Amino acid sequence: MANVLGAIEAGGSKFICGIGTTPGDLVTAQIPTTTPAETLDAVIAYFRREAGSELKAVGIASFGPVDPHPGSPTFGYITCTPKTGWRGTDVAGTVGRGLRVPVGFDTDVNGAALAEARWGAARGLSDFLYLTVGTGIGGGAMVNGKLLHGLLHPEMGHLRIPHDHARDPYPGGCPFHGDCLEGLASGPALRERWRMAPRELPPEHPAWPLEAEYLAAGLNNLVCTLSPRRIVIGGGVLEQPCLLTMLRAELSRLLNGYIEAMEIVEEMESFVVAPQLGGRAGVLGALVLAEAAHGR
Amino acid sequence: MANVLGAIEAGGSKFICGIGTTPGDLVTAQIPTTTPAETLDAVIAYFRREAGSELKAVGIASFGPVDPHPGSPTFGYITCTPKTGWRGTDVAGTVGRGLRVPVGFDTDVNGAALAEARWGAARGLSDFLYLTVGTGIGGGAMVNGKLLHGLLHPEMGHLRIPHDHARDPYPGGCPFHGDCLEGLASGPALRERWRMAPRELPPEHPAWPLEAEYLAAGLNNLVCTLSPRRIVIGGGVLEQPCLLTMLRAELSRLLNGYIEAMEIVEEMESFVVAPQLGGRAGVLGALVLAEAAHGR
Repeated sequence: MANVLGAIEAGGSKFICGIGTTPGDLVTAQIPTTTPAETLDAVIAYFRREAGSELKAVGIASFGPVDPHPGSPTFGYITCTPKTGWRGTDVAGTVGRGLRVPVGFDTDVNGAALAEARWGAARGLSDFLYLTVGTGIGGGAMVNGKLLHGLLHPEMGHLRIPHDHARDPYPGGCPFHGDCLEGLASGPALRERWRMAPRELPPEHPAWPLEAEYLAAGLNNLVCTLSPRRIVIGGGVLEQPCLLTMLRAELSRLLNGYIEAMEIVEEMESFVVAPQLGGRAGVLGALVLAEAAHGR
Repeated sequence: MANVLGAIEAGGSKFICGIGTTPGDLVTAQIPTTTPAETLDAVIAYFRREAGSELKAVGIASFGPVDPHPGSPTFGYITCTPKTGWRGTDVAGTVGRGLRVPVGFDTDVNGAALAEARWGAARGLSDFLYLTVGTGIGGGAMVNGKLLHGLLHPEMGHLRIPHDHARDPYPGGCPFHGDCLEGLASGPALRERWRMAPRELPPEHPAWPLEAEYLAAGLNNLVCTLSPRRIVIGGGVLEQPCLLTMLRAELSRLLNGYIEAMEIVEEMESFVVAPQLGGRAGVLGALVLAEAAHGR
């Protein structure tokens, strides 16, 4: 094995580590997320043991919020996460020093967006949106062929949307904002509102039209801001297959023909699509980040 | 006069035409917006008469929606505007053929964003947001140093935001969406809700806290999506000076410390600012577009 890359999807419950060069040859292993020191030591030991001196670069797609700006004094840090012990952890620096290779670093959702652009549902698109709806709601945006970072990185879960309190008295579960999009429409919000796990809610349950309304309001806002050529939307909550269909109809209803693009008015089924890389999007995104770090 | 550029701010009530090379030497004239043929003929005649063969390129910052994509068969067209007679008008093509010079073309708000980036309140910033709140609400975004276009261009006025019907029974005035941001917070919405012109509403009127809430909800959503380094916000409604102060406070309250950037948490007064170019932003943006067209 020569000139391999390392890919790390750093998640709140596990780190997925991969070694390879393409989706076809990437071999992965999982390391549970405990303390930063213990977890990152195990990650470094894994790559030393499995890749050794053939390792040329590592990419990390991380839970956050993070500092994704190369050149910033806290580049590669997890910043203000509520996850115990991880606040202010220098993830990229620790891994880079431990393995003595260049490190690429970004958010988990930006990583997933990169992977879907390279090998998945957004191939060939310079401008698109990737959204995941699960434990939280997060998004990444490609604009003019580059990831959008700006000041930090998007926090698309925290959009404010209309909340019909009469129909839905659930106050929202976001500790910062109450009834923001994530507070109303994440997996935990569904569970708390309906006292059932999202996967146990049957397709005819009133949970789903309400969920489609909230997510469509969020998508409406993202469309009006980013003008994406496609929306790739996945995550655990989208595993209920009726939801994607409902979401397309509701987004059409909300936009109401205002944005006169054939892609939206006539081709909603290819405008709002499921991801193609599923659970591998994060680690494959990390592979794209490793590639870029190797090329620099 | 040698090697001058032409700048056109194409508005719904008037076209502002300028000849020059910089903000310091730009001489402007106004042409009323009537029919497309009459208006564009007058525009072409103006540049022929005043600049003649010294004119090297023209830039147009236009009301819309428009097609801003060079290479598209309808590049430079105003597309689905409700303005009578202007739907499907080939503005850039007509002007370019009439004057036999290269033409740059974009939306009025993208033009204003370019001008504020070059000479105004967003100098040196690769990532920022420009928003105008007047007859309508529109925005332009710079991302990684380039204007965001995507599929078409942003339509930031049409975000869906929380609407407290009990406190504000006004149903919203957007013909497409009712109570979207523009439907609730544009100048005409203020006038219709309070039966007074915005400029006549005194600073202590309850109109202003409500307006600040709606605009802050919109800004919250734009911050969470675009992660701008600065927000430049102007337009007729912002001529009430108390509004900008209220808006900053309300945006801080909504974000609630979630985005831990010094620029937002500690420096809100330089994060949300007034434009510096005022009514000249559109025509100066057209000058930047002309420059780019000349350079190509």
